[in-house]
Formats: sequence, structure tokens, C-alpha cells
Amino acid sequence: MSGIKAAIVGASGYSGEELIRLLLRHRHCQIGVITSRQYDGKAVETVFPRFAGSGLVFSNPDIKQIAEQCQVAFLALPHGLAGEFAIPLLDAGLKVIDISADFRLRSTAKYQEYYKTEHPAPDLLKKAVYGLPERYREKIKSADMIACPGCYPTSIILAAAPLLESGLVSTKGIISSSISGVTGAGRKVDLPFIFPECNESVRAYSVSGHRHLPEIEQELAVAAGISELAINFIPHLAPVNRGINSTVIMDAEPECTIDKIAEAYHNAYHRERFVRVLPHGKLSDTKYVTMTNVCEIGFTLDKHTSKVIVTSTIDNLTKGASGQAIQNMNIRFGFDESEGLL
Amino acid sequence: MSGIKAAIVGASGYSGEELIRLLLRHRHCQIGVITSRQYDGKAVETVFPRFAGSGLVFSNPDIKQIAEQCQVAFLALPHGLAGEFAIPLLDAGLKVIDISADFRLRSTAKYQEYYKTEHPAPDLLKKAVYGLPERYREKIKSADMIACPGCYPTSIILAAAPLLESGLVSTKGIISSSISGVTGAGRKVDLPFIFPECNESVRAYSVSGHRHLPEIEQELAVAAGISELAINFIPHLAPVNRGINSTVIMDAEPECTIDKIAEAYHNAYHRERFVRVLPHGKLSDTKYVTMTNVCEIGFTLDKHTSKVIVTSTIDNLTKGASGQAIQNMNIRFGFDESEGLL
Amino acid sequence: MSGIKAAIVGASGYSGEELIRLLLRHRHCQIGVITSRQYDGKAVETVFPRFAGSGLVFSNPDIKQIAEQCQVAFLALPHGLAGEFAIPLLDAGLKVIDISADFRLRSTAKYQEYYKTEHPAPDLLKKAVYGLPERYREKIKSADMIACPGCYPTSIILAAAPLLESGLVSTKGIISSSISGVTGAGRKVDLPFIFPECNESVRAYSVSGHRHLPEIEQELAVAAGISELAINFIPHLAPVNRGINSTVIMDAEPECTIDKIAEAYHNAYHRERFVRVLPHGKLSDTKYVTMTNVCEIGFTLDKHTSKVIVTSTIDNLTKGASGQAIQNMNIRFGFDESEGLL
Amino acid sequence: MSGIKAAIVGASGYSGEELIRLLLRHRHCQIGVITSRQYDGKAVETVFPRFAGSGLVFSNPDIKQIAEQCQVAFLALPHGLAGEFAIPLLDAGLKVIDISADFRLRSTAKYQEYYKTEHPAPDLLKKAVYGLPERYREKIKSADMIACPGCYPTSIILAAAPLLESGLVSTKGIISSSISGVTGAGRKVDLPFIFPECNESVRAYSVSGHRHLPEIEQELAVAAGISELAINFIPHLAPVNRGINSTVIMDAEPECTIDKIAEAYHNAYHRERFVRVLPHGKLSDTKYVTMTNVCEIGFTLDKHTSKVIVTSTIDNLTKGASGQAIQNMNIRFGFDESEGLL
Repeated sequence: MSGIKAAIVGASGYSGEELIRLLLRHRHCQIGVITSRQYDGKAVETVFPRFAGSGLVFSNPDIKQIAEQCQVAFLALPHGLAGEFAIPLLDAGLKVIDISADFRLRSTAKYQEYYKTEHPAPDLLKKAVYGLPERYREKIKSADMIACPGCYPTSIILAAAPLLESGLVSTKGIISSSISGVTGAGRKVDLPFIFPECNESVRAYSVSGHRHLPEIEQELAVAAGISELAINFIPHLAPVNRGINSTVIMDAEPECTIDKIAEAYHNAYHRERFVRVLPHGKLSDTKYVTMTNVCEIGFTLDKHTSKVIVTSTIDNLTKGASGQAIQNMNIRFGFDESEGLL
Repeated sequence: MSGIKAAIVGASGYSGEELIRLLLRHRHCQIGVITSRQYDGKAVETVFPRFAGSGLVFSNPDIKQIAEQCQVAFLALPHGLAGEFAIPLLDAGLKVIDISADFRLRSTAKYQEYYKTEHPAPDLLKKAVYGLPERYREKIKSADMIACPGCYPTSIILAAAPLLESGLVSTKGIISSSISGVTGAGRKVDLPFIFPECNESVRAYSVSGHRHLPEIEQELAVAAGISELAINFIPHLAPVNRGINSTVIMDAEPECTIDKIAEAYHNAYHRERFVRVLPHGKLSDTKYVTMTNVCEIGFTLDKHTSKVIVTSTIDNLTKGASGQAIQNMNIRFGFDESEGLL
Repeated sequence: MSGIKAAIVGASGYSGEELIRLLLRHRHCQIGVITSRQYDGKAVETVFPRFAGSGLVFSNPDIKQIAEQCQVAFLALPHGLAGEFAIPLLDAGLKVIDISADFRLRSTAKYQEYYKTEHPAPDLLKKAVYGLPERYREKIKSADMIACPGCYPTSIILAAAPLLESGLVSTKGIISSSISGVTGAGRKVDLPFIFPECNESVRAYSVSGHRHLPEIEQELAVAAGISELAINFIPHLAPVNRGINSTVIMDAEPECTIDKIAEAYHNAYHRERFVRVLPHGKLSDTKYVTMTNVCEIGFTLDKHTSKVIVTSTIDNLTKGASGQAIQNMNIRFGFDESEGLL
Repeated sequence: MSGIKAAIVGASGYSGEELIRLLLRHRHCQIGVITSRQYDGKAVETVFPRFAGSGLVFSNPDIKQIAEQCQVAFLALPHGLAGEFAIPLLDAGLKVIDISADFRLRSTAKYQEYYKTEHPAPDLLKKAVYGLPERYREKIKSADMIACPGCYPTSIILAAAPLLESGLVSTKGIISSSISGVTGAGRKVDLPFIFPECNESVRAYSVSGHRHLPEIEQELAVAAGISELAINFIPHLAPVNRGINSTVIMDAEPECTIDKIAEAYHNAYHRERFVRVLPHGKLSDTKYVTMTNVCEIGFTLDKHTSKVIVTSTIDNLTKGASGQAIQNMNIRFGFDESEGLL
């Protein structure tokens, strides 16, 4: 198992920083190229002092250079731009692992509805595999183009899919009330995200029509074996750096019991290294997953209202973005799935 | 309008501290007696340096002394103890404003179910008025015993009651996903509440059967004009000192529209000084209500799922406890309702 | 004592917000005009929802309008601009209370050295009184132009001046290691101040040559009765919204004792409502002064090194800016000094 | 290089948790025994859910069992207890790496003065090597008993020693104003450390006579080549989980220049993997070192007062405790010094 080289395209944000942090520790993949238009020519350590000594330098993205030097490219770009890089890099034989939103939705109509722009590369979309290893590992093994899930969707799909698949909960009336840390907004310099506006503040936002909604609905429908379902996804912002908690509330079907829920999760995840299902009665906490690639799941059955209540926590930058991207790379290249992630 | 004197019974916690802060600013009510078994004989400023210069000294609670010196008593005691003080103080002619949970539930059976102990004073319960001024102002005007609502219930009832009353939402399937700051747990010295266990942590707790649940259900049933309803109340803890955000999700009835929701809130609250309903599309934020007695409400109608989504934020120690207690006192004694609260 | 009207010029930042908060509670001063170029025409509550119901609307600054409607103007502008408003408003007979840095330094040379620009109004400088009531109350009583101290200087001067004045500490080798919350940087939208860059971060900045340095040195020299002294002022940023702690370290003179230090503070502050000197051995804490106009001082004498160590905490937006501005207005207009500030 | 087994004695606190985190990633050292009286028999994951899947179980400390199974023991005990374990474990041939304070001070008199108890094992003290690799690497290579430095001392000694050694700063008048996160207080359940008492609070404490003071003075005297010196060490608490910033202020000797300072640091640290000296003008920030074993140093020379000002940041749990302990183990056992620490 010889080593490979990776390009990180668009590495100036928090997902890029997390990719660097994790890849510097990876034994089989080195960072070959690291791009940022904004910081072209600057040492990475001038932007992220944490990486002093790495010798890494940002360059302008150059497809030819990437293609020559790397076997895999991570795209950490704003939506709408991934196709521009993915197509030529795939043509050049690289594997592409996209952290943006462009290749997650199978429906170009949904993409257009939620992203307010035509899909930039509908042909490529057909090739893309949804990069949630716990659900699509077999496809990821041979995929050339992997679209990593959004952070919220990762937490919600991992929580709900096994129960939908086993028919223990209704496909109707699912609600996810989610809370995210502020890195979820990116390294964005905008008034609502300066410290005094976020600290000592708890607030909901985009409670109707958030861009992650269609992605969640798509994957829950797949799990339920139906063509469509509609949920409420209600995100909140809390003053932590990292971490998402999704509390998913679902109607229990009549035959649903605590034991059956536990069994469904056990079947789904007992071989998974990055999903930790807590014993019944314990709830998850973001502080136990931050800086890890783990999704922690707690559950209960509320008899009072016949609801299944599941809490699912991840680090939005790790399992919710860059850690999962590396997990996908490990699967695709035949490395140990947890390489660089422990 | 001459001044009165108040006793604060059990003043060593955060609700007690907030009562002191607000009463020191009140023009018609002075603090006459302030009790704490733990700090008996200590100057209040040794516990709360903020109140240096107040001259206040904690004493052991002494019903006779309180009765002689005060016209009103605020009880900020753990549940189960309020009756012990309330009964003799009422007999002595004082008005009693209870911040504990003992007199909020009309059903002693529910009390026993949720508090795991027999109700300590069922006779007194019948006299107690639920101290949510926006709902019970007329009764509060002549009540001798006022049971202030819990913090979570205040935020949720103010959000949901007008819509239930006007029939715009279903009485079934109501969910409140709430997030509280850590003072909500009291000034409790316990491992889960030390700083490193709360900071950089977001977590759900008591997602089924929280003690505030029956209180919320009781009042929402009243608003809906039915005898009983069941909801899901799902509290979370976030690393802020003060503030609760409740996101309440309700099924819209067919005739429900944005305009009708706005109208229902307008009718309920346009004369209220401590409820601020935001224009449609704006959501509330705890940071705009902390250190105030205001409940801020934002709302939307999600057409995708026919849900009404309401966010309701308060300061758990002010509108959620001590501020509301003073608002009740102001009403009862004929002071300006906002005295000491602006 | 009839009421007056105030203008707040440049009210879109955190000092402006704090001025509004405090003036809305003031019984003898109403807000007459409130200006912001950026938000001209917008209701104040669209920017600061906390002030819903106030009816306040931002307008473009118009000197004639201010002069006609107001008796006092608070200037909360970036440095360099205060003179432009102060001169015509003073000519029109208003009292001007400036929160900017323009009129704090008596030496125009120092101003130029630290602010990298010529002083905009040297003539006016001569009239300005340094608005630290505990040191200049008599002058403030008749001043037309009051230059409010900076936040750090307020905390440091109040800590050190009494000891310098009484000769208990050396004028040489004074060091203030100060820590500020992030509102100290203003409502500035800049990468170093977004939440994830400040949260879980502690850092020093401008450790040599901070703009508040000459102001501190000027006032400590006055206290010591000498023409000049040099100190080290070392600011740090910590993830809190409000609050400054200055730990001031001074060489004890041979005759210095704990009792003499206590006596010096007693003499300086025992009649002051907004300075709280703690008993020996207790240190101050920002959490006991935030949202108040109080400066809390703790002290000790380290025999090991013969240093006097004083901790001095304030709320940077209240005693460090807008609260002190109102305290100055109260003094100038003969209101109770604590009006609006309790 | 075959693997070894380690015991963690007293693993229920934050240092213990950090040792587990780091050792689980170490390729040449496994955790053999992990003790906690409080949690005897409990799976480690019930206390620290982060370590689910590790299979680790707390046991009561049993010297015989440790001696049989392990080659190295990390002691993470309260002061006064280390000797009790260290002596028999050393007799049994293990290497002992102590994180407590018991073997840091060479003078038993100083120990008694600061810890208010007689030294528990003065004979062993003579054998102990001070475990700061950047200063004592050669001795650590063959030490059987390694006393890891305190967190504050690590940050301060690394900042000051090179400048004292090269004579660029005076040995008199050194001041360290340090700020620590709350894990520095341990996993202690005590009122001053609950969330609402720490959040939105900045405060100094133990400004005279902190227990880390004699340790710092001892090592700075060694660096300066003198028998004794006295400094001021002034710790503060800020609301972050992890991280220490020490701002060290020293009198520049006449010949001191920026270049000479840079050279002194270069000579001391250019081969060190865990000390990062920033270019002149940049200051360190705790956020760039948390969760790493790095000490980041920034410096400047203030000409105004002829002071050298150095900022030095570490993660108090990593370089300040458990990371450094592992670095010492790596050195002692001939592993790569950064094994498990990148």
C-alpha cells in the first residue's frame, strides 16, 4: 500500500483547515497541492499558525499541476464551483471528493429550487456517489466522484435511517431540531457572526427551507423505500465552536419498542467504527465527539406521545465535513477506514 | 401609593439574586427581610458582591419577623417547602408570590407523578393563581397566593396559547424544542454543571417527562378550551448564562394563514409591555431579551409541512422567574406594571 | 429640575447601544436625536431589537437639528471626527460629552504620535475636561466639553491614582496587565473578531504602544504630581462580551503597608458610589460589575517582591464608556449622580 | 522497538482523560492498567464516553498488578500521594512519570512552605529529574523518576529561560501575568467553578504565593546561573476550557536587541519540535496550540520602558501536563519524541 498525494482545493476556510489537520497525520496520503486564490503564495502557517513547520504554501488552483501531482482532490469550495474543477480532474484520472453541496442532490430541480441557480454539471451528478460510508460504503469503494454529505444531514440521516428502514417509525411528521456551533457558518466575516453577536445568544434561523433540507429528505426517503417524504428541519445557532446536536422526533409505529429500536441501531452500526449508539436512557453530547469523526446517538421512546426521540451529535467539521471526506478516501483507496481519524 | 416591604425567602440562588437586583431598583417596594439558612448572618455582599452597599444581611427564615415587617413574601425555595412558609404568611395577611413549582399544577395527582412526593399543601393549591400576567392578570389583581410559572412554561405558553385559543393550530402533536442557559439549573454545585462540562457542549436532557411538562400541558389545554392535551417538551442545555429559546412546532389548521397568526398575536399582546411579537420572517434571539422582562416571539408558517413554527425567547431568571414575580407584585399592589422592570 | 434632551451622535456601535439602554431609563433626560449615517431612516429597533417600542429612528447627523432640539450631545464617533460636531454644538450652547479619544490627551504631540494624524481641533482641546468624575468632579460641574476616558484607562487610573497620590508606590516600573471582553473592539466586522476566532482563545495584543497608553501615563503623572512617567500597558482579549480586568503591579515604597493602602483607597473612594474597594485579600471579578457603572478594586501587598498588586474591574461599555458619560452628564446638569445608573 | 504497557494511576480527572486520549493513539505504548478509587470497576467510557470501544475499565490501584503488567506508570494524583506509589513501583523496576507537584521542587523547605505539609518522600526527590525536555532532555533519557512541570511553569520557563541564560534580561523584577482556562482547576466540583460563575467572568486569583511560584523561581534561577531569584507570578482565570497564556515581562539589559532575543530563542529551540517561536511582532494565541503539545512564543522589546515582553501559550492539559508526560516517556524509552503527539 504505497502513499498517495492529495490536493485540497479551496483550503482557506474551516473545512480546509480541518482537512490539513487530519491529512498531516495520515500515513498513506500526503498533501501535494493546497490552493487558495486569496492567499496565493502565502505559507499556510501565516493563515493557520497551527501548521507551522508543515512547509505548506497556498497556490492558485491549477488543474494541470494538480493532475500531475495528485491522485485525489478534495474540493472545499462554495457551491456552484465544484464542477469546474471536478470534470477536468476526473478526466485526468483523479478521484474527486467534494465537500460542497453541488453533487449531493440527485434532482437538479431541487438543486435549482434551493440554491437559486441552475445545476452547474448535471451529467457529472449521475456519477456522484453520496459519501455517507455507513449507508453507501460499497458504492464508495469504486466511486470516482464522491459527494460528501452536509453536516446537518450527516447527523440526521445517521439517526433516522435505521428506524425508517426497519419500519419502526412513520415517514410522516419527522422533525429535526438541530443546534450547530458557529464554525458551521464557515470562516465568514459578517456582522451576525462576530463574537458579541453570537456569545450569550441562542437563536433559530432558516427554520423553513434551509438548503440542507432536500438532502435530508432525499436520503430519508431512500431509507424508507419511498420516493418522497417531507420533514421539518429547524436549525439553531449556539455559542460553541464545533459540534452539532440533532434531536430527531419521529412517530413510533404501533409495534415499535425500545428493544426493537436498540436492535435496529445495533444491526445498522455494530460494525461501524464511527457511530456510537448509547445504551437506552443516555443522551449524546457534542463535547464527547468534538475533534473526532464519531457520531454519537442516544434514543428514547416517549410513551406519553408515542414518539421516538433520538439525539445525534457530531463534530460538524470532522464527521460533518473533512473527517468524513477522509473516511471516504480511505475506503476508496483501500486504506484502513480509520487511518488519520483516531 | 406608599411603599411596601418584601421578604425574599431562600435568597441564595440565582432567582434570589435576580430578585434582589430588581427590587433594589424598585421605587415602591423595599427589601425588608432576606433569608438563607446557609448564609445566616452574612452580609448579602459577601455572597453577591454586586450588592455591596445595600446593607442587606441574610437571616434565618423567621415567619413572625417576616409577618411583622413585610407586606409581601417572595418564596424562592426548592419544591416541597413553599407551603410551610406560605400558609402562616397568608394567615398573617401577607401576599405570597411563589417562584417554586409547588402551586403551579392544579392536579395533585400530576404533582405527585412528576415530583415523586405527595403535594405538601393541597388546600392552599386551590387558592393559588397561576402568575402569568398576560393570561391571568385579572385574577392576579386580587390573588393572595400567586404561583409564578416555570421558565420553560413561560416561553412556551406565551408562544402557543394565542394560536390554540384562536383555533389556528391543532391541539395534537405540539412539540417544543427548547434550549436553556445554565443558570436554569440553579446555583447547583454538581459535576455536569462545572464549566468544562458545559462549555463547548450542547446536549438534550430529560427529553421525556421533564417536570415542567405537566404545567405546560395544563395551560395549553386551558388555552385550547379542552380538558387535556399531550405535547413533547424537549429541553437542551447550551453554554450561555441566561436565556431560553423555545421553538414551538404546531400543526396548522386548514384555515391558518400568516395574517391570521399575526392577528392572533396582535390581539393577545398588542397592549402587553413585556411581549414583543416580531414581524413575520424575523426570529427571536435570546441576546435581545437577556436582563429584561421581555418575551420575544417570532413566527412562520411552513407550507411544505403545514406547520406553524414559533420561536419564543426569554431571560429565564427575569421573565422566567424573578422579573415575572415582580410584575405580579406590581399588578397585585396596583403599582405600574413595569415598575422596577425597565 | 426639569428634563433635558440628548443627542446621540454615531449610535450604531456598542457604546451607542449602551447609551440608549441607559438613557431610556433616565428620568431627567430623553433621547431627542439619534444619528447614524449607515442606518439613516431606520427604526432603532431594526438594528437593536432590544429597543422595540422606543419609537426611536436613526437620522443622518444634522447639527442644526441637534442644536435646536437638544441640550446635550453624546459623541460616539471614531477618532478624528468629534471636533467636527463638537465645535458647532458648543457654539450653539450645548454641552458636549465625547466618548471618542480626541480630547483625552492634553498633548497634541502625543495625539499625533499615537493616532498617526494631526489633532483635529487643538483649540477645543484646551477647554475639554477629562471626564473621570472620581478625579475631576469639580471641573466637570462646569465643563462644556467633557472627554470621557477610555475603558482601559478608567480601570487603571482608578486603581493606581490614590496610591501614587499618597506616595505609597513608586512612579517607576508600573505595569498593567489588562484583559478585555470583545465588545472592547467595537461592533467591528473583521476576521479576528468572528466568533470562532475569539472563542476558546486568549491572546495579548498591542503590548507595546497601545493608543490608551499615553492617556494612562498622563493621568498617572498628574496623580503622582510629576510631569511624566512611563508604564507598561499590556492588553489581552478574552472570550467574554463585556468586562475589563486590569491587574496593576507597582513597586511598594518602603513605608507602604496594607493598612496604608486601605486608607488611601478609603480616603479616595469612601464617598464614591461607583467605586467599590474590597476588603484586603479579596480580588475583583468582572462578573460582579458587568451591566453596572461600578469599578471594583481588590488589592494586596506581596512581601516576597515588595509589589503592590491591584485588580480593578469595570464593564467596558458602562463605567468604561457610556455609563461614565451619563455620570458626567448627571454631574454637569445637577442631576443625582447615579440617575439612570442603578 | 517493541511495545510497552503503561499504568495511569488516578485517571478520573482531566489530566487522566488527556493521557488516555493520547495513549490510545500511541503506537508503542498501550494502556495496561488504569486506576480510580472512585470509579473502580466502571468502564472508562461511562465516565468519558469519548473512549467508547476502548475496552478500558477502571480498577482500584494495586501496586503488584501494575508492577507485573507495566513498564511505566503515569501518576496523576493529588499532591502528597505520589511517593506512596512511586517508591514501590521504582523498586519493581518501572519508570515513573509523575504529573503531581510532589517531585518538582528540589527544596523540601519550599515544598513545606507552599504545600503546608512535610515532603512525603525526600529521598526520592533527589532522584527525580525535572521533566521539561527542552531543558533536561539528556537527564530524562536515563531518569527513572520524572517529575513533570506544572502547567504555568512550563509556559513561563520556556519563555524566560533562554533570555536569562544569554544574559539579555535582568534576573530582577520578572513578572508573569498568566491566564488559564478552567480545566486548569481540575475536574473539581466547587461553586467558583460552575458554569455561571466562570462564564462571562475574568478574574485574578492567588496573585501572591501561588503554589507554582517556587517551581518557576527554581528553574529561572537555574537558567540564570544563580542560586535564587524572586518573581511575581499572577494567574487569572478566563472562560475557556483549555489553554494558558503567560505574558512575561522582563527588564532588558543594555545590550539587548530584538535580533539578540531572536537569536537566543533560535539557539534554544530551532531543533525543538514542540516550541514554535513566532517572527518578531507576532504574538501567540492559545487557540493555535490547544489540543497540541506545542508551546508558541511571541516577543517584542518595548523601547519606551526597556522591557522585553514575551507571550507564551500552551494547552495546559497537553504540553502543560499529559502531552509533556508522554514526550518524557518517548525520550526515556527511545521512541520518536513526537510519537502519539502529532
